[in-house]
Amino acid sequence: MALIVQKYGGTSVASLDHIRKVAMNVNINREKGNQVVLVVSAMGDQTDQLIAMASEITSSPSLREQDALLATGEQVCAALLAMTLESMGHKAKSYTGSQLPLMTDNVHTKARIVDLPTGTLLQALSEGVIPVIAGFQGAAEDGSITTLGRGGSDTTAVALAAKLEADYCEIYTDVDGVYTADPNICPRALHIKKMSYQEMLELAGLGAKVMHVRSVELAQKYQVPLVVKSTFKGNKQTWIINEEGVMENSIIKGVTLEKDVSKVSLIRIPDRPGIAHQILAPLAEAAINVDMIIQNVSIDNYADLTFTIPTTDLGKASELVNQVAREIGALEVRANNNIVKVSAVGIGIKTNPGVAARMFKALSAENINIQMISTSEYRISCVIEEKYGELAVRAVHHTFGLDEPKEPAPSE
Amino acid sequence: MALIVQKYGGTSVASLDHIRKVAMNVNINREKGNQVVLVVSAMGDQTDQLIAMASEITSSPSLREQDALLATGEQVCAALLAMTLESMGHKAKSYTGSQLPLMTDNVHTKARIVDLPTGTLLQALSEGVIPVIAGFQGAAEDGSITTLGRGGSDTTAVALAAKLEADYCEIYTDVDGVYTADPNICPRALHIKKMSYQEMLELAGLGAKVMHVRSVELAQKYQVPLVVKSTFKGNKQTWIINEEGVMENSIIKGVTLEKDVSKVSLIRIPDRPGIAHQILAPLAEAAINVDMIIQNVSIDNYADLTFTIPTTDLGKASELVNQVAREIGALEVRANNNIVKVSAVGIGIKTNPGVAARMFKALSAENINIQMISTSEYRISCVIEEKYGELAVRAVHHTFGLDEPKEPAPSE
Repeated sequence: MALIVQKYGGTSVASLDHIRKVAMNVNINREKGNQVVLVVSAMGDQTDQLIAMASEITSSPSLREQDALLATGEQVCAALLAMTLESMGHKAKSYTGSQLPLMTDNVHTKARIVDLPTGTLLQALSEGVIPVIAGFQGAAEDGSITTLGRGGSDTTAVALAAKLEADYCEIYTDVDGVYTADPNICPRALHIKKMSYQEMLELAGLGAKVMHVRSVELAQKYQVPLVVKSTFKGNKQTWIINEEGVMENSIIKGVTLEKDVSKVSLIRIPDRPGIAHQILAPLAEAAINVDMIIQNVSIDNYADLTFTIPTTDLGKASELVNQVAREIGALEVRANNNIVKVSAVGIGIKTNPGVAARMFKALSAENINIQMISTSEYRISCVIEEKYGELAVRAVHHTFGLDEPKEPAPSE
Repeated sequence: MALIVQKYGGTSVASLDHIRKVAMNVNINREKGNQVVLVVSAMGDQTDQLIAMASEITSSPSLREQDALLATGEQVCAALLAMTLESMGHKAKSYTGSQLPLMTDNVHTKARIVDLPTGTLLQALSEGVIPVIAGFQGAAEDGSITTLGRGGSDTTAVALAAKLEADYCEIYTDVDGVYTADPNICPRALHIKKMSYQEMLELAGLGAKVMHVRSVELAQKYQVPLVVKSTFKGNKQTWIINEEGVMENSIIKGVTLEKDVSKVSLIRIPDRPGIAHQILAPLAEAAINVDMIIQNVSIDNYADLTFTIPTTDLGKASELVNQVAREIGALEVRANNNIVKVSAVGIGIKTNPGVAARMFKALSAENINIQMISTSEYRISCVIEEKYGELAVRAVHHTFGLDEPKEPAPSE
């Protein structure tokens, strides 16, 4: 008998009909003799609707009140699912974050978990009750309702699995696992059966939308095995486990495309110690996440500095950088949001020399110019012109042998 | 500087635009130097929509889960109003029932308040924060969310006013107070400026929809002055206070019409001790509220017994009564939902003999046959045929001098 934490995302509980199907899925697990703890997101676009109401009131709503507002979405869904399970003859109880209580700090809209006592849940489980937990939310020390930010329901599920020492944590979503590339871009992308936390982290950080970085980090920290699967289609699933458990290692596990990237260049800045800090510190203060940074070789004591940032921060960043540019006497600031970042990810990179070279060669063969490069133990990223993005993904995917084998031609 | 608890009903907070107007009303009170504590219902028909979802799942939902579901309606509204007040420059915080905490017993869907500590609210008030409380809800000892049943937000407001020793409790609704009769039935009905708790209790119990019996009882018990007024139209208001405070006493304060009434008669039952109990006990067990009971004079040791019940319980009651009728050998059971109850209410009844006679005479003058009569210190009720209901209200209203004086004819 296994103890399984199951998390159902918004698309899995988008309607009462979806909720009924989720309850039937839970039923199957119970019939196998497993204990289950359920975590749910808000139904469909409920969260967006609540946010829209708040923004109709003001462009900068009280974050405490926004949390109190949004938390109702998951509470509604948890109550409806518990109700559905009860109507099928199970014992079930819904719990809000405050009821567990899932204790957080008081940073509204992106609170972090500080404590998660399990007494209430263990009591429920011992009475044969299926606990249905409203994900994404907690309570601060003063009793205020908090929310955990993006991917919050996944975080709730993983934290519960860790504290309950569950056998594994199932993440039900609208895709049936992780693929070697976005199948919409790369039709021959392969389904991945097993991958390491580290690989998933790199993929998540690079725009693969299956799971949020934070919950994968938490799973890694507490060694909670994750299973990503679809609620409604097929039986495929992707296990995300520790590196040792990933047997069938290919060098590259996947290829991603990040579109929300912009590039800022400062031309002809004085090449003196501390200059990069002077330029980048205001961005850090404004909580703008600077990613790749390149400074070219200095000529006549002048250099150029280029870095990438999320496109959503481009306006603010340009403003800050132009101010510094005037202070330090740079020749010019150039901003460009016409770029994308293509990355190859895999734990094989660190042990296989020449992986980067193969990637560059594949891009070159398609006449794609590489504007910036960065590498790490697990990843190689290239910034290229936006219009080549999808072609680049397919080329890199192919060069590392990730394409699904073509069906043999019919023999007749 | 007064401390005022203000309760805003569902129609007062039906949209974001309504909520903005409520916030402006709060603003006026703050500018007068008053401290305010706000209690809100769910927006418009939100509660009905949530109930509809639950009934789509099952006809008998888990009551614990139904409470968890419904409580979100008030939570959403409280967060949105607090947000609106903050956007106007006030300090405001929303609180759910669990956050206060408003402690109740564990009778889901109709819980009763057992404790209501005010520490959180007093702290907020001392910091200049406007507390916005989600009405209708509380928490049981085990932490489960409970709801207080019909009129629950009024109950929350009155309980808070009592515990905070507020100067008074304002009930904002879609009518501008209490009238001597329903103006839709009786166009010349007069607005009532002041009335006693007891009069309001009788009127509420007889179908006047302005306030629920329970919250008026609570206000009477703790001597909380109530003010009923409209959020959006005019400046009229009705004060509901203790009997001594009601100066301008007329004999009759109002006339009501109850339509949701049915009559059940058992014909020719043996006239022996305990027979009424034998007939009515099964109804009490089924929680059917039997109102007027009449047994006619016995002839040859046989009598007829007639009583009234809410029409919604007629099916169940008929079933139970027919069973008893067979057991005791009654001749026949007759059920009739073609009746209404007209009542005159006023604290003057007990001290003015002949009031009942005046009412009967007024009905008789309109050729309306009285089928059943009951009286109490504060009220006289007559059951009559349904089709005469509205005519009867106007006749009784007129006979007690409650009609609004006609405008004098223009002199030209």
